[in-house]
Amino acid sequence: MIGVVGGGAWGTALAQVYAQAGHDVLLWAREHEVIEAVNGAHENKIFLPGVTLDKKIKATADLSHMGEKQAILLVTPAQHVRHAMGVIGRWLPAGRPVVICAKGIELQSGKMLSDAALEEAPQAEIAVLTGPTFASEIVRGLPSAVTLAAGTMEAAEKICALLTSRNLRPYASDDLTGAQIGGAVKNVIAIACGIVAGKGLGESGRAALLTRGLAEIARLSEKLGARRETLMGMCGVGDLMLTCSSMQSRNYSLGFMLGQGRTLEQILGERKSVTEGVSTAQALMVMAKQHGIDMPVARAVCDIVTGESSIDAAISALLDRPLRTEKA
Amino acid sequence: MIGVVGGGAWGTALAQVYAQAGHDVLLWAREHEVIEAVNGAHENKIFLPGVTLDKKIKATADLSHMGEKQAILLVTPAQHVRHAMGVIGRWLPAGRPVVICAKGIELQSGKMLSDAALEEAPQAEIAVLTGPTFASEIVRGLPSAVTLAAGTMEAAEKICALLTSRNLRPYASDDLTGAQIGGAVKNVIAIACGIVAGKGLGESGRAALLTRGLAEIARLSEKLGARRETLMGMCGVGDLMLTCSSMQSRNYSLGFMLGQGRTLEQILGERKSVTEGVSTAQALMVMAKQHGIDMPVARAVCDIVTGESSIDAAISALLDRPLRTEKA
Repeated sequence: MIGVVGGGAWGTALAQVYAQAGHDVLLWAREHEVIEAVNGAHENKIFLPGVTLDKKIKATADLSHMGEKQAILLVTPAQHVRHAMGVIGRWLPAGRPVVICAKGIELQSGKMLSDAALEEAPQAEIAVLTGPTFASEIVRGLPSAVTLAAGTMEAAEKICALLTSRNLRPYASDDLTGAQIGGAVKNVIAIACGIVAGKGLGESGRAALLTRGLAEIARLSEKLGARRETLMGMCGVGDLMLTCSSMQSRNYSLGFMLGQGRTLEQILGERKSVTEGVSTAQALMVMAKQHGIDMPVARAVCDIVTGESSIDAAISALLDRPLRTEKA
Repeated sequence: MIGVVGGGAWGTALAQVYAQAGHDVLLWAREHEVIEAVNGAHENKIFLPGVTLDKKIKATADLSHMGEKQAILLVTPAQHVRHAMGVIGRWLPAGRPVVICAKGIELQSGKMLSDAALEEAPQAEIAVLTGPTFASEIVRGLPSAVTLAAGTMEAAEKICALLTSRNLRPYASDDLTGAQIGGAVKNVIAIACGIVAGKGLGESGRAALLTRGLAEIARLSEKLGARRETLMGMCGVGDLMLTCSSMQSRNYSLGFMLGQGRTLEQILGERKSVTEGVSTAQALMVMAKQHGIDMPVARAVCDIVTGESSIDAAISALLDRPLRTEKA
């Protein structure tokens, strides 16, 4: 039996994937209307409408039974991971896998989500599931692959064996840091790519910007002890490619609308879901400063979303930077 | 003064970029109508219509003056690079830069284009210019960046200084092998991604396939002596991302139409330009066999374009492969 904490689109899609793979699934959701709709009409009408959910999914408002599950998937917004982990931690046995499926960096501390989670529940076996996935596709059974990273390869492989399904294939990794940095920062790079597309600057320029963004991710990851090769996988290049090229991405589409001249307040005001890149851009600046890493693309996004720079000024500044090597 | 050998869309766009940067440009084209249109109406009506070309571009049918230029850009189809180099080589002084802008692998030998070129004109300073660029965007002055690789960093930096323009920014590299393998193989991966999109298998699956394709490129490149980090740059991830996500790409759009059920003959019969991935897929199998590299995505594309496998059978075979690590 698998626990899923978070009844948004991705949490609901993961619940469906594992229910269809034969598991009983307990889905915790914050909103009462989600719980009622999942248990009654077998549909998450708010966050993933139009999909009939498997009856093996039971929704609940109570986190106290999560510790009894074989594995718990944590699918809250990134900034809620610490709090959710604190609550679950009260009932969590030692060594129980908790798989973080959120992507981001903690704003208050500049820490990775796995570190924040471990501070709240040090007895957990923390893992992350991350890669190029759109909930609306995965819930329909379309094929996908992700990186599943844990503290050791043994733990990662054990969790992979449990969380393999026909259409969601996890690759095991023991690079928790590399897996998380890629997934977090790509949301920021996606906002930048969206802006460039929204301004009509072309697909070539967007691809160049994505590539410079990947160089920033690589510099930061290496400084934090990750392996560069991890970024070549689903959690890095794969996720970056998907997020930076599709209007299905909340972050890319937010950037696109910014590029077309709308304000951040207008765009966010119309959304029910969190657009992670907005807070990650700011959290990233905390982290980059702590570690002395140059991240000009992320800095430009941060300046734009905080109102410190206009889009045109930020783009000019990026284009006028002197060229160094591709690694620098 | 710069020489450009090849009057297709990309050759014409490069001629325009460097003419606008202040260089006189001599553009060799195979087709008489291209030469007449460029010299008369200042437009390449066949391959890049709708763009008024700079008057500093002169078109010619005569290759014998190319050796007098400061640098020669070789922008023929990949399978014509050896022949063109043999002709130019007769008049080429020692150490003169010849920058290969084609992307592919020689079908007859399974060799990299730089190796084929050097066999024909060993006195040349061979370089490659490669990255995420659509001719139609670059010719309009939209921003872009590429990798410019040569045998030494000193040579690469010298050529970069000559070939820098306001909207086409080259990053210097001394990894000739890495720069070429990325650009060649991505055309094959793009066909695969197009097929998946044409079959309606979703953006998540396409991103996963691209990522597995990158792992194949990395395995082959490393075996050939390239550095893995080169693939993180414009010539690798950048180009792969652009080519695998846009209908502007000839290779991606060919795959897309195959995925929708059209035949290779129908699609190629309607095209004036070469779709490099079709021959590269076959050349790659020669190269992969020589070096003992497992390339299942490229193999699937090769089997599909040669008629040895149906699309559905090839996709099933890929999805049913046992998972190993992301590197393997």
